[in-house]
Amino acid sequence: MDRNETAIQKHKEWNGKIEVISRAPIETREELAIAYTPGVAAPCLEIAKDENLVYDYTRKGNLVAVITDGTAVLGLGDIGPSAAMPVMEGKCAIFKRFADIDAFPICIDSKDPAVIIETVRNISKSFGGINLEDISAPRCFEIEQALIEQCDVPVFHDDQHGTAIIASAGLLNAVRFTGRKLEDVKVVINGAGAAGISIATLMLKIGFGDITICDSKGIVWDGNPKNNEAKAAIAKLTNKEKKQGTLADAVKGADIFLGVSAPGVLTQEMVRTMAKDPIIFAMANPVPEIMPDEAKAAGAAVVGTGRSDFPNQINNALCFPGIFRGALDVRASRITENMKIAASHAIASVIKDEELSADYIIPDAFNPAVTKAVAKAVAEVAVKDGLSRK
Amino acid sequence: MDRNETAIQKHKEWNGKIEVISRAPIETREELAIAYTPGVAAPCLEIAKDENLVYDYTRKGNLVAVITDGTAVLGLGDIGPSAAMPVMEGKCAIFKRFADIDAFPICIDSKDPAVIIETVRNISKSFGGINLEDISAPRCFEIEQALIEQCDVPVFHDDQHGTAIIASAGLLNAVRFTGRKLEDVKVVINGAGAAGISIATLMLKIGFGDITICDSKGIVWDGNPKNNEAKAAIAKLTNKEKKQGTLADAVKGADIFLGVSAPGVLTQEMVRTMAKDPIIFAMANPVPEIMPDEAKAAGAAVVGTGRSDFPNQINNALCFPGIFRGALDVRASRITENMKIAASHAIASVIKDEELSADYIIPDAFNPAVTKAVAKAVAEVAVKDGLSRK
Repeated sequence: MDRNETAIQKHKEWNGKIEVISRAPIETREELAIAYTPGVAAPCLEIAKDENLVYDYTRKGNLVAVITDGTAVLGLGDIGPSAAMPVMEGKCAIFKRFADIDAFPICIDSKDPAVIIETVRNISKSFGGINLEDISAPRCFEIEQALIEQCDVPVFHDDQHGTAIIASAGLLNAVRFTGRKLEDVKVVINGAGAAGISIATLMLKIGFGDITICDSKGIVWDGNPKNNEAKAAIAKLTNKEKKQGTLADAVKGADIFLGVSAPGVLTQEMVRTMAKDPIIFAMANPVPEIMPDEAKAAGAAVVGTGRSDFPNQINNALCFPGIFRGALDVRASRITENMKIAASHAIASVIKDEELSADYIIPDAFNPAVTKAVAKAVAEVAVKDGLSRK
Repeated sequence: MDRNETAIQKHKEWNGKIEVISRAPIETREELAIAYTPGVAAPCLEIAKDENLVYDYTRKGNLVAVITDGTAVLGLGDIGPSAAMPVMEGKCAIFKRFADIDAFPICIDSKDPAVIIETVRNISKSFGGINLEDISAPRCFEIEQALIEQCDVPVFHDDQHGTAIIASAGLLNAVRFTGRKLEDVKVVINGAGAAGISIATLMLKIGFGDITICDSKGIVWDGNPKNNEAKAAIAKLTNKEKKQGTLADAVKGADIFLGVSAPGVLTQEMVRTMAKDPIIFAMANPVPEIMPDEAKAAGAAVVGTGRSDFPNQINNALCFPGIFRGALDVRASRITENMKIAASHAIASVIKDEELSADYIIPDAFNPAVTKAVAKAVAEVAVKDGLSRK
């Protein structure tokens, strides 16, 4: 039985990957009268007087909504809210497994950003945090931004920021392993969609020296009249030398190639034109921009991918459980850039100098130290920046 | 420590009465790859081809949303979505305890019926059923009606229909116990709000002979220019003799008094003017329309209340778990009048002729036979009426 058949069979067997259980014993009339009417009126009235008590008397402070509209599910595209449900349940199961967070899947039956924003805002008071998932670009930017402004709990689009945080963590370690200085490295990011732009934005804030972004047409440059809004904005912050040209032109002399693009677009010839001991993160799924063995044969010092069958997997489970754990622990009102930067450093720091190797740049998703370190770092920044409500 | 203090302390200790757990083991990379990406793509694609498979591969078929806007919470009134949360969680805990249903609380931060309707419709695909709760009248009628039309899963406003089903069940047994014929009984319902009108509507369909409704001004009669829409509609179906007058006038010669009104409004004098061996359901909470001992002293043969410290408690936990269990079991598209009538007879039938007594007219909420009987009856009607999608 191949993995697809196993997955079908297991999903049928589970009949749902989440379950809602009761934390209150209801075995006697008196227990019923405490957990429900008339006893429950007492905590209700306390919350009506001081809304913050909802964190004490209910599950809100540990609840995260995993929300999608089903428009960009994995690599499958727009498969709709019902077909997206197995992915959302899987995400919820990971939240529980890695961070003891109670996450619940909500699939929205509309593709209109305004409708999605209003729907999520209207239900957001029931949750301690909102995880947006698999919403297509550029709609995802507008939806996330509006919800951050309108909700008083953290809103986080994992596809953008989770990937950015983990990729940055891996690159921090690759820079450390190859003995480079962060401010000196030249980075080429191939892919100017939601992921590429989000990764570039975070890497700039972390302090990576010079970043150049390419799309399918070549280098993104400031002033190109064909740039859309997002590309025009990122073009102002990247490509310091204002280069124009192809991906091949961009990677010449670069220290780092990071791909969120398409299978096979990085050739061995291109790798050979990069700086000595180049770092390659080829994150296209399931087939990367260059296969790890080819990249190494062409001189790559470190190779990372999105796949679990190669070393250095950029796996989202490394980040979102800890990010939300930290935010929930201090009842943070939002997830800020500082918290994301802290999360990235926290993931990197799990691997000590003496443990670092070409094949151990990114910690394993099952290493319990990861979520712990991320949660701690995120909570500390939230407290320091005055965003804790505890 | 009184019950209120205990309730506060327990709610703090529980820190939430629900919890979301994972049904999928995620202990190895391969298990992660089955429950989440890339394995999860296989069930997603199957559902994209045949949407009905979402019932097989996800939890949808066992998920019920418990939804409120916080406008009519218990007897506390409009305390808002956050303060309503402990009640909704309590309801979810009862769903799990009595019917193994995974229920999740959603508190909506709007009082606009149009907004509430759209919000619930937009998230309804994630659930197998929608339980509306503690939404004020007359908004609750409009909201329920619109959602029944717009959602393809059952929508049920428990405050209206649950109470009606259980009260009718109790009255069926009281009629049986006192040796009356259903078609001959004269009923007075005091209270013309959501509950009173909903109870009258169901009782007429079940076959109770003549029903007269009173509001705080007296008897509701057809043609009264002061009737609102709901009263005008129910007036056409009730009060066969077209009586006008006070509650005292209405109850003269009546077999049954059912109150969903205010403390103490039914006097012993009024009870003495009723037919021999009258049946009194005094459901105002926490202080009933007449106390059970006073009603009995004035000649009542059977007394029921909403309280757990007297016999014959009209307890909603008798109905909603079984109603939804039955509907979910056959993937019913809606909950119909026939299903409600069947639920009422099912609750009544749990008590056999030889077990019936003045103090055992309504079964105990903890009797496991109740939910079982209701679920079976509801599922059978759904199948018979062609509403099952299994």
